[in-house]
Amino acid sequence: MILGAAYYPEHEEPAQWPIDYKKLSAAGIRQIRIAEFAWTVLEPQDGQFDWSWLDEAIETAAAHGLDVVLCTPTACPPVWLVERHPDVLPVNRSGRTVGFGARQHRSYHSANYLRYAMRIVAEMGKRYGHHPAVVAWQLDNEFGGETKYDFGACARDAFHAYLADEYGTVEELNRRWGTVFWSQRYERWDQIPLPAPIDADVTMWHHPSLELAFAKFSSLAITRFAAAQASALRPYTGDRPITTNAFMFRYGDSVSWPVLFEELDVVGMDIYSDKPHEIAFYGDACRGVLRRPFWMMEYGTGSRRLLSEMELVRDRGCSRFFLFKTKPFPWGQEQGSGAPELLTITGEPSANYGAVRDYAQAHADYIEPAVAEPSPIGLYYHFESSWSYRIAVSDRVPYPDYLVDTVYRSLYEGGLSVDLLYNASQIVDYKLIIVPLHVLHDEELEDRLLAFVHGGGRLIVTTDLFRKNRDNVFLTQVPRLYAALLGWQQPNFVPDAIAERPAGGIYAAGEYGSGSAWMIARDASAAEWRAAVASALMADQAIG
Amino acid sequence: MILGAAYYPEHEEPAQWPIDYKKLSAAGIRQIRIAEFAWTVLEPQDGQFDWSWLDEAIETAAAHGLDVVLCTPTACPPVWLVERHPDVLPVNRSGRTVGFGARQHRSYHSANYLRYAMRIVAEMGKRYGHHPAVVAWQLDNEFGGETKYDFGACARDAFHAYLADEYGTVEELNRRWGTVFWSQRYERWDQIPLPAPIDADVTMWHHPSLELAFAKFSSLAITRFAAAQASALRPYTGDRPITTNAFMFRYGDSVSWPVLFEELDVVGMDIYSDKPHEIAFYGDACRGVLRRPFWMMEYGTGSRRLLSEMELVRDRGCSRFFLFKTKPFPWGQEQGSGAPELLTITGEPSANYGAVRDYAQAHADYIEPAVAEPSPIGLYYHFESSWSYRIAVSDRVPYPDYLVDTVYRSLYEGGLSVDLLYNASQIVDYKLIIVPLHVLHDEELEDRLLAFVHGGGRLIVTTDLFRKNRDNVFLTQVPRLYAALLGWQQPNFVPDAIAERPAGGIYAAGEYGSGSAWMIARDASAAEWRAAVASALMADQAIG
Amino acid sequence: MILGAAYYPEHEEPAQWPIDYKKLSAAGIRQIRIAEFAWTVLEPQDGQFDWSWLDEAIETAAAHGLDVVLCTPTACPPVWLVERHPDVLPVNRSGRTVGFGARQHRSYHSANYLRYAMRIVAEMGKRYGHHPAVVAWQLDNEFGGETKYDFGACARDAFHAYLADEYGTVEELNRRWGTVFWSQRYERWDQIPLPAPIDADVTMWHHPSLELAFAKFSSLAITRFAAAQASALRPYTGDRPITTNAFMFRYGDSVSWPVLFEELDVVGMDIYSDKPHEIAFYGDACRGVLRRPFWMMEYGTGSRRLLSEMELVRDRGCSRFFLFKTKPFPWGQEQGSGAPELLTITGEPSANYGAVRDYAQAHADYIEPAVAEPSPIGLYYHFESSWSYRIAVSDRVPYPDYLVDTVYRSLYEGGLSVDLLYNASQIVDYKLIIVPLHVLHDEELEDRLLAFVHGGGRLIVTTDLFRKNRDNVFLTQVPRLYAALLGWQQPNFVPDAIAERPAGGIYAAGEYGSGSAWMIARDASAAEWRAAVASALMADQAIG
Repeated sequence: MILGAAYYPEHEEPAQWPIDYKKLSAAGIRQIRIAEFAWTVLEPQDGQFDWSWLDEAIETAAAHGLDVVLCTPTACPPVWLVERHPDVLPVNRSGRTVGFGARQHRSYHSANYLRYAMRIVAEMGKRYGHHPAVVAWQLDNEFGGETKYDFGACARDAFHAYLADEYGTVEELNRRWGTVFWSQRYERWDQIPLPAPIDADVTMWHHPSLELAFAKFSSLAITRFAAAQASALRPYTGDRPITTNAFMFRYGDSVSWPVLFEELDVVGMDIYSDKPHEIAFYGDACRGVLRRPFWMMEYGTGSRRLLSEMELVRDRGCSRFFLFKTKPFPWGQEQGSGAPELLTITGEPSANYGAVRDYAQAHADYIEPAVAEPSPIGLYYHFESSWSYRIAVSDRVPYPDYLVDTVYRSLYEGGLSVDLLYNASQIVDYKLIIVPLHVLHDEELEDRLLAFVHGGGRLIVTTDLFRKNRDNVFLTQVPRLYAALLGWQQPNFVPDAIAERPAGGIYAAGEYGSGSAWMIARDASAAEWRAAVASALMADQAIG
Repeated sequence: MILGAAYYPEHEEPAQWPIDYKKLSAAGIRQIRIAEFAWTVLEPQDGQFDWSWLDEAIETAAAHGLDVVLCTPTACPPVWLVERHPDVLPVNRSGRTVGFGARQHRSYHSANYLRYAMRIVAEMGKRYGHHPAVVAWQLDNEFGGETKYDFGACARDAFHAYLADEYGTVEELNRRWGTVFWSQRYERWDQIPLPAPIDADVTMWHHPSLELAFAKFSSLAITRFAAAQASALRPYTGDRPITTNAFMFRYGDSVSWPVLFEELDVVGMDIYSDKPHEIAFYGDACRGVLRRPFWMMEYGTGSRRLLSEMELVRDRGCSRFFLFKTKPFPWGQEQGSGAPELLTITGEPSANYGAVRDYAQAHADYIEPAVAEPSPIGLYYHFESSWSYRIAVSDRVPYPDYLVDTVYRSLYEGGLSVDLLYNASQIVDYKLIIVPLHVLHDEELEDRLLAFVHGGGRLIVTTDLFRKNRDNVFLTQVPRLYAALLGWQQPNFVPDAIAERPAGGIYAAGEYGSGSAWMIARDASAAEWRAAVASALMADQAIG
Repeated sequence: MILGAAYYPEHEEPAQWPIDYKKLSAAGIRQIRIAEFAWTVLEPQDGQFDWSWLDEAIETAAAHGLDVVLCTPTACPPVWLVERHPDVLPVNRSGRTVGFGARQHRSYHSANYLRYAMRIVAEMGKRYGHHPAVVAWQLDNEFGGETKYDFGACARDAFHAYLADEYGTVEELNRRWGTVFWSQRYERWDQIPLPAPIDADVTMWHHPSLELAFAKFSSLAITRFAAAQASALRPYTGDRPITTNAFMFRYGDSVSWPVLFEELDVVGMDIYSDKPHEIAFYGDACRGVLRRPFWMMEYGTGSRRLLSEMELVRDRGCSRFFLFKTKPFPWGQEQGSGAPELLTITGEPSANYGAVRDYAQAHADYIEPAVAEPSPIGLYYHFESSWSYRIAVSDRVPYPDYLVDTVYRSLYEGGLSVDLLYNASQIVDYKLIIVPLHVLHDEELEDRLLAFVHGGGRLIVTTDLFRKNRDNVFLTQVPRLYAALLGWQQPNFVPDAIAERPAGGIYAAGEYGSGSAWMIARDASAAEWRAAVASALMADQAIG
């Protein structure tokens, strides 16, 4: 891996830059990631740009052997923008405006916000797109971080337009959502509410089709904004890679990674974790999106096992690794406890500074690979099924936790190598594909799974497979895959209320063409997953 | 019991009705409960009623041997009504309007809501009141379900009118509430706040007399609305019984059952529980209100012990038993997990379909009784005492839980048969009457209890008996019952802060006329209740 | 101790006063504390004062041998004032106005509130300042009780003025707060938000310098109001002592005691606790503020160990002890459970009435002392460091709990006598001074500690000593005390992320002049504190 670190030149006096850069270089750091939140200092007043300090910070870095990954600063609109256009600010679930004073205080649906954000992105591209020291770009920061959802007027209007686009007519929406239930029939788009909590005397919740539509809409607004930033940069940046830093699902998997990275060049993410299986999962999850090496955009410096964790993500396809961060922030929301980063708050090397330097020296001749190695097992991650389960009330399932901490962990601890899959088109020649909790029906995926098994593949699905349609509505007929792959003869789905649980949680199994398929309980334990996977892999060997 | 099931013809194509009706009939279902939330399809636009589908749904049901219990759809005002009259919507504790998009989005205090609700009720009565297949009526759904309380402008005005009616003058209210405390004296009704949470930096709460008045007012608005619906139907429905479906106290016992059912013909309720003593409690509680057999309006189909639970409620006086529901909802807020109901989501019979059919066949010749059998023990349930304890801060007691899970459960598990009592007039010839946590003084009840014991009855009360007046204010003198029944000589109430707890929690006992009375700790354990009841019953045998 | 009790003459008919006064006198009660919440009855309409009842209540008390501590009633503005000037009401964290109907519904920043409050205080002073039976005054009640913070418009304007006063220019504030972080740079004071919770989708919080400034500002508004009340009374009250009743830190230590009592004559507080070490802590904490005997303004009557608790606080310097209260409130927010006070709700003596009478008889000849005995150990309590830790996010430390339940408790249970210290000027000739969790740098304190140790003192500090400046920003250089006192040679602070914990949690120790100093982990356990203190005291003996 190439090593990098986050640095904030705007936090320091220019005289400090060479001092810090020297220490970074001496540790084998080759790239710095800068300007992430620097909107105010780049555009102190509306339309008045100040590039001088950034020019100098980049030149000084280059002079010290440091390449630059330049970030667009759009996660932090300045106070003058917020003041001029209050609709820049999103509205939270309680109906209160998220005010100025932190970060991510911007509505992805505000035309004013989008216009100003795109302007500074384009200006940065124009100025630094061809700069020889600027080797890559990061868009914004942790898209959808603090404000994934907006319940304000801009969002409401945009949501109505989204629904009109999706459903064509209100009658069609009524029909597909089943608004005859509880007399919820709408007459016009503008009567449809945003699903902010109802907060009645007794728990009451929104219509699940409305909730899923809002989740899709909210993700789409973010991924469209990312794509627009990339498009604005491309005329200036040439073939320099553009990425962003996705975040772990600890705060929700609310932004669809496959869509987010579709128009970017490399997958980037931030990991803060001390659990090996979790770190490994996100490594595999990042590599899977574009089937290419990925970049770790932020990794905490405080771990007692930093070196082994670096090896863990490197082995999963990480080709650039940016430490967060050069030194502690003395002020601001992330001042933490003043604990050391690469440098201490007084600017001295920390314990892990040495560890990083050792790594860099041992791998000084590293060259980034172009493609990633495939694995024998594919694990399918479906953002929309996850959202369907997150917004469920009586049937809520912690989708990300279950996939990470039960399904993936049982594979990881069994020493098995895994690719994460996100699209039907990624169903290729794996030995075994696992499709857990894929509750939303997807006809293309159904076709591909049939073909995959027919061609000799092994497949494990869960009992909730394809039970709902894309509107988050239960199917009233069993999809054909059930009979074809699993020999399922009943006109019903797997019962889950009264029936006895079969041994090992395996409700059905069948053969189809040259392959085999199993259906396991959607709440199967880690032990049951281990047994089912071992059995599927053995079946494969017997045949193969 | 006569068996029934909830059905939603408006959710289906008419061609589906005969298919479903046949399956219901074949299981021995004899009645369907329909139209509960169908306002929008019955009145798609203001004043334009569409009865055609309901006419046909009822005719088709009758043709398949199914009688109809018709529900008024007033729990779900249509979007056009909400839009035309925004004051239809209630305001929640946080001051936010409960918007359209779920159910129970109506203020019981909105004149606009009440006018439209009464109109559709009257229109339904006019059209179906004499219909031979419509054998009974259900009003609304789970009155006070999601929105028991409204903190909006309509509620505020209505509350001030209620207070004026109760207290006559503001001076009288000031005097009885003791608003001299903390300088809370009011000058006019319109200065009195609704008790929405204060949410200060430190826990701060409203005046307990205000809280109790608001609880009474809120219950009264609901029971008045129910009575008005019944009155609107009667001119058309003749002697067909009118009921409603009360709910368990899981979400609060905020609607006074005795008042709710006072002007209805039969007690109806919904039970969702898997605890035998809880199911039994609600059976006894329902039978006690009108001293007649009651109807189970909703009972979940998912239990593994459905048959024994049906017998449990039947043995407690249930004469009609409606399963909820015919099949799962594919969409909407109650889509759940798609788990089977009587039919699966694909329309196939579920496991419990067979159980229900067996029950129906075994009791095909059942005839509804007119009266209920009395029990030897009476347990007094006092809604207003429960409210007094719910709104208490330093002295909160979970009244419903204590009565159900401690007092009643100890009786139930001892195999004792119990009537629930709600009014002084129900103090008749029981062997033993138990009056727990009756903290609010009631002179009529005091008289009746004295007469009951004098005539040979056995009585168990708790240490908090009659400590407050109806304004939720502590008495400063001990009521005469203490001396008369319990031989209580002190000018004080039972001390509960420093004093030692007596053996068995019995603080006092006495004889009066031919009977006896005991006073037990208000937090007596189940074991102490068992001992006290056993002792009281033995005392009775010795005398009797 | 002189004994007193809270009494509320306005709650009773005048005919009741002599009855109650006689019972109080018979128990040895010599003072009553009255009028605490009586604004409405003293000023029933704007500017119309009614002193007649209070005149009589005081005269009657005097006639029964009871002196009066008179309270200003400013914690409860009347409804007419709130109605005329709605800005009297504070706004809570959720943006909702805290309405009329409880207490403390007043903004310390409302010019209207302050004007009316000061008027009634002055009028009371004028009327009763020289009254021979009025022997002392209490200001308001539990300042900052329910509403320490106000997020309304008056508070916002006042906060901006406070910041302008503190920082001079917005540029200076930007520089000292480091608002370059996350592009938070402000252009004008009025752009700076109040730190009400952001409540974004994901936890997001305010700038720590903003939070600390708001905490200081909010405390200052309260202490200024207290000082203003005292100033308004002094022209009339002569040398009669003025105090107020501070509260335990259970709801936060948000009002700085040293500043609060700076312009008052005696420290007063309310204790409700059943933990001996906690009661002892507040006793020592009260005595320490002014180094004089203090008054217990409220102490609950319900304890089973009342007499021993009275001795506990007396031994720590309490010279007047007011029981709360004469008898239970039948109505209002504090009606509790009707449990007895000195008298029961029926007016009969309670169990503890006897205990109090016994105490009074045994100490009938008590004379209040003028000064308090010093202790050999000083424990430093720093309100602003506590606030810094309270508002921290990733590094939150429960400062008051740690000082009370770990540090102080280990001293108390070791039988050691302790003074609480609050200011650098209180660093005098103790054997041992303990300065835990003093995270904010204070140059004067640093100087005094150096001098203290140099002169032979023993000092224990924690690893976080002086790590931040007064703006809540981390220092980037180690203060000189580290090297001088502890022999700390590194340019870094104590590392706290990766480093091993040393034995006993002692990170450094050194000698300076004739004294010694130790630095212990900021999360040292009670056992570690006991060991460190024992070791420090032994070191002292060896030298001394």
